[in-house]
Amino acid sequence: MLIEYDGRPFSGWQIQHDRPSVQQAIEHALEVVLKVRPNVTGSGRTDAGVHARGQVAHFDVDEPVDAARLRRSLNGVLPGSVAVLALEKTSDEFHARYSARSRRYRYYVTGVPTALDRDRRWLLRPVPDFDRMNEAAEYLVGRHDFDSFCIAKSETKNRICSIYSAGWAREVTSTGRSDWYFEIEGDRFLHGMVRAVVGTLVMIGRGKLDVEDIPRIIDAKDRRAAGPAAPAHGLILERVKYEDRFAKEAFDAIYVNDDRK
Amino acid sequence: MLIEYDGRPFSGWQIQHDRPSVQQAIEHALEVVLKVRPNVTGSGRTDAGVHARGQVAHFDVDEPVDAARLRRSLNGVLPGSVAVLALEKTSDEFHARYSARSRRYRYYVTGVPTALDRDRRWLLRPVPDFDRMNEAAEYLVGRHDFDSFCIAKSETKNRICSIYSAGWAREVTSTGRSDWYFEIEGDRFLHGMVRAVVGTLVMIGRGKLDVEDIPRIIDAKDRRAAGPAAPAHGLILERVKYEDRFAKEAFDAIYVNDDRK
Repeated sequence: MLIEYDGRPFSGWQIQHDRPSVQQAIEHALEVVLKVRPNVTGSGRTDAGVHARGQVAHFDVDEPVDAARLRRSLNGVLPGSVAVLALEKTSDEFHARYSARSRRYRYYVTGVPTALDRDRRWLLRPVPDFDRMNEAAEYLVGRHDFDSFCIAKSETKNRICSIYSAGWAREVTSTGRSDWYFEIEGDRFLHGMVRAVVGTLVMIGRGKLDVEDIPRIIDAKDRRAAGPAAPAHGLILERVKYEDRFAKEAFDAIYVNDDRK
Repeated sequence: MLIEYDGRPFSGWQIQHDRPSVQQAIEHALEVVLKVRPNVTGSGRTDAGVHARGQVAHFDVDEPVDAARLRRSLNGVLPGSVAVLALEKTSDEFHARYSARSRRYRYYVTGVPTALDRDRRWLLRPVPDFDRMNEAAEYLVGRHDFDSFCIAKSETKNRICSIYSAGWAREVTSTGRSDWYFEIEGDRFLHGMVRAVVGTLVMIGRGKLDVEDIPRIIDAKDRRAAGPAAPAHGLILERVKYEDRFAKEAFDAIYVNDDRK
């Protein structure tokens, strides 16, 4: 299933005791519709307040289901803050987390106060130097140990990630307001990593750190070497890409079909 | 001043007794900052729940003010649902309503449930035939009496409006979801007019009315001849254009400056 959610009402993707999570909302909706409660496995966690346009999850059912009908039923039961954009039967070998080849995030900032997008933009005034931040972002690309950009208490031991691309782009709204977003794609991301990267780049964009500080921070392997985390509400999980053998089965359809009833 | 607002918390632009309005919020913020309460005049009203990316308003002050500083102060006082994007001193001859040459609205719809944009999209399933709706929209362009698209109790006697352009366009989101918006520009719009037009076009797009019913509905001069009003939350006041002599003074700056501090 391809899922969009508004991160505001949730303490994150993953089920937590006594706090609302997206995973819990989906498992609950499945239980209402199917009368059984399957475990829902996401491509990865997102933190409290982080949004998703393209989270992917899977679950197993014993009885065959009508996918189109189940999708409509789930959207009828789910709160407005969660939408199942697509739902398709896939191979037994598919695993939302382990079959994923890459994840892509975007982090949105604006230099002008915004009312309509206030829950999805970090307001930065004065605006940082985006050229400088793009120079610095180049140093992130490649295979590195991102220990310095990972929340210390995280349980992950292996902190090596491959970053395929990272950079800032400008997006002009229909009324001429300029926003920028940082887009980063990699094989995996550590807990709090994208927000720590954005917070560090913004320090560089404001001249408080140098462009060449990025390799130094990476080498330090210490969270304190990097900048503070950017706020959660600017971050969106955009898309998860899968091994080619699964793409044909489900994901091509999801991303091209614009007339699903 | 150029103003963006999220229409949800408001009963509309115009001050109403005992109900929150955008005009009241701005006048209140001005009073907090300036210690006097000027009347704020908008380019026109927007209905309850309707958003704006480019509402324009003016007010008069006796004492000179630092515009950049006032804008920042206002944004500090205003609720998050209202943002002053720009504020500039203009000519005494400028009037936000009477100097306006045209207003442009957009109405957004989607065929797929959406979580992040649920407060700004009308969910239409099945999706209507956009080619058919565009054919019908052609009949709106020109100078017509739009009585059939105006809420009956409205106080306006002259219901003749010039529509400069009207049509549907497609907008593909970063994750491949297709949305559509109806964009309409005209010299003026009557109370409830854009929503009545959209509701009528959607009936045509679903085959419940014919393309050629538009001229018939216009001729009827009866609100009951048109379709039901589309919901308020899909509608956004995008931009108000002014006489050229004012453009140089204030509006060019507003729409090109993307680095305001």
